[in-house]
Amino acid sequence: MAEEVSNKQVIFKGYINGYPKESDMILKTSTIKLKVPEGCSDAVLVKNLYLSCDPYMRSRMTKTDHNYIPVFTPALPIIGAGVAKVLDSSNPNFKKDELIWGMTGWEEYSLIKSTEGLFKIQDTDVPLSYYTGILGWSGLSAYVGIYEISCPKQGETVFISAASGAVGQIVGQFAKLLGCYVVGSAGTKDKVDLLKTKFGFDYAFNYKEEADLNAALKRYFTKGIDIYFDNVGGEMLEAALLNMKLNGRIVACGMISQYNLQESQGVKNLFKIVAQEIRMQGFMVSNYVHLFPKFLDFILPLIREGKIRYVEDVAQGLESAPAALVGLFSGHNVGKQIVRLASH
Amino acid sequence: MAEEVSNKQVIFKGYINGYPKESDMILKTSTIKLKVPEGCSDAVLVKNLYLSCDPYMRSRMTKTDHNYIPVFTPALPIIGAGVAKVLDSSNPNFKKDELIWGMTGWEEYSLIKSTEGLFKIQDTDVPLSYYTGILGWSGLSAYVGIYEISCPKQGETVFISAASGAVGQIVGQFAKLLGCYVVGSAGTKDKVDLLKTKFGFDYAFNYKEEADLNAALKRYFTKGIDIYFDNVGGEMLEAALLNMKLNGRIVACGMISQYNLQESQGVKNLFKIVAQEIRMQGFMVSNYVHLFPKFLDFILPLIREGKIRYVEDVAQGLESAPAALVGLFSGHNVGKQIVRLASH
Repeated sequence: MAEEVSNKQVIFKGYINGYPKESDMILKTSTIKLKVPEGCSDAVLVKNLYLSCDPYMRSRMTKTDHNYIPVFTPALPIIGAGVAKVLDSSNPNFKKDELIWGMTGWEEYSLIKSTEGLFKIQDTDVPLSYYTGILGWSGLSAYVGIYEISCPKQGETVFISAASGAVGQIVGQFAKLLGCYVVGSAGTKDKVDLLKTKFGFDYAFNYKEEADLNAALKRYFTKGIDIYFDNVGGEMLEAALLNMKLNGRIVACGMISQYNLQESQGVKNLFKIVAQEIRMQGFMVSNYVHLFPKFLDFILPLIREGKIRYVEDVAQGLESAPAALVGLFSGHNVGKQIVRLASH
Repeated sequence: MAEEVSNKQVIFKGYINGYPKESDMILKTSTIKLKVPEGCSDAVLVKNLYLSCDPYMRSRMTKTDHNYIPVFTPALPIIGAGVAKVLDSSNPNFKKDELIWGMTGWEEYSLIKSTEGLFKIQDTDVPLSYYTGILGWSGLSAYVGIYEISCPKQGETVFISAASGAVGQIVGQFAKLLGCYVVGSAGTKDKVDLLKTKFGFDYAFNYKEEADLNAALKRYFTKGIDIYFDNVGGEMLEAALLNMKLNGRIVACGMISQYNLQESQGVKNLFKIVAQEIRMQGFMVSNYVHLFPKFLDFILPLIREGKIRYVEDVAQGLESAPAALVGLFSGHNVGKQIVRLASH
């Protein structure tokens, strides 16, 4: 008979408006049998080790007529990317004791019935938590945005917003490896310092201290921006448009400044797209899964050789998960926000 | 000795704000010698036959710190595309009696010193006036937007704003030739009828009669828009964004709704660029001159065979030119707005 254990969970209370609050999630303890139930084929029962906090998760907390990913189900655990260990499996692709990453629940143990979103972890000489970020969707996002969409050439100028975040920090380092001039914006002095000292950005600035974002960009990009990697949208996008060079490219990766608004802000200066012959292109990293093998072959050596550095903001324990998620939207995290439940 | 003749001119009075008015231009009669002056090498003296009225000309009437093309010079004639006959030349590329098209002055006769913007007219079995439009920049704009930027595939859905205008009418016909479903918007019943009866659009609607542009687009694009060819920007772009399919493309050709505003309108719904993986790309047709030979080889047979139709709105005489230009911004023109000065 399967062992039944207690299972702490972070439950999604119900759909929200505006900024998410810790109280939109409830900590609950239920029980779970550490075995895939009879008749449940192709499923895995996992112990969750690390959970990923990502801005896009906000969009799963509000029901609209144009949700681009399924909303969370009230009264069930929050769903997100995570690293986990297989405790039991009825799926021939995943075996007991194997490590996986992919979509899992915000709880100690999860029964995952839909395993298409799971990946087996092959390389364990790097921190396991990296598979929530630099070796997972965040890293692939940076890779796709740089190598598939904007394709920077040596000497080009690159601006990155939310630059110390999960994706931004990697984007900046990729651009530096390609020989670009790289400037990032972030929201605290600590983050700005990190960009310059740890990630090797040429310059960085605190956007909260700039009364005029256009003027700030003109200071760092006297001849204009070739590539704007946009993680924030809104006013920063508006200012970047004014500074794009001819044939500039805007990678629309995310728009965190807009996620908590009832109605998105209008962005001015779009005529620059015509006049400067700009290509602005969005992408959903989930549609680039086929690039994962190529991406891992590319980034693993860079991590091992210390050529790419990576900063995580680690919250300890499932109890801290709601605050960690909420903190993303006030810029509380320094680096990729994750939650550590267990190390093995 | 060279003959000196009177030369009616449309003079640009000075920089403006808001909508242009006829009184921003002055009709004046000066004199001109019908000969390239001594010592003026590589110039041509032309008799202007047809002048082109184009929305982009508005941007040359206001001085800002970010003009993307040079402003007009106050007290000199308006400059624009036109068809002309060479009366005298010190340029070996252009000979007396040859027909040319390109940048010329709004006057009966022009001395053109900078001839890089001039093209020799080779094919004269089609209406000469066409070189102000379908065989000139308007046609090339449609060609670049369709064949170089959006590349529609058979069965894709295409939406075109300002669809009966100089560029829109050609874009729609190109898209129909490629086997697309094509819908256009315009601002009067006559234009809407023209789109359906003359240009073969599948559907067309009068945007001024739609209280909700999003709902209007949903009516015609029940499964969404693959390609939005944007000539207007602003609220129509905002509504189109809500209706784009995954991997949709927005061709940013022009934004006539914005040209007379002191500050451009903010456009909401840009997050759709991320979520729907949209590519929005602008272009300046002047940077695609190298495609002209290929374009002419493509379009001339289509015109001769009646497979592409073209509607011009012809104002008679230089005196009517200011009203013709001003009329563009209230949608007064039906089809490409030109001014006829002489036929040969």
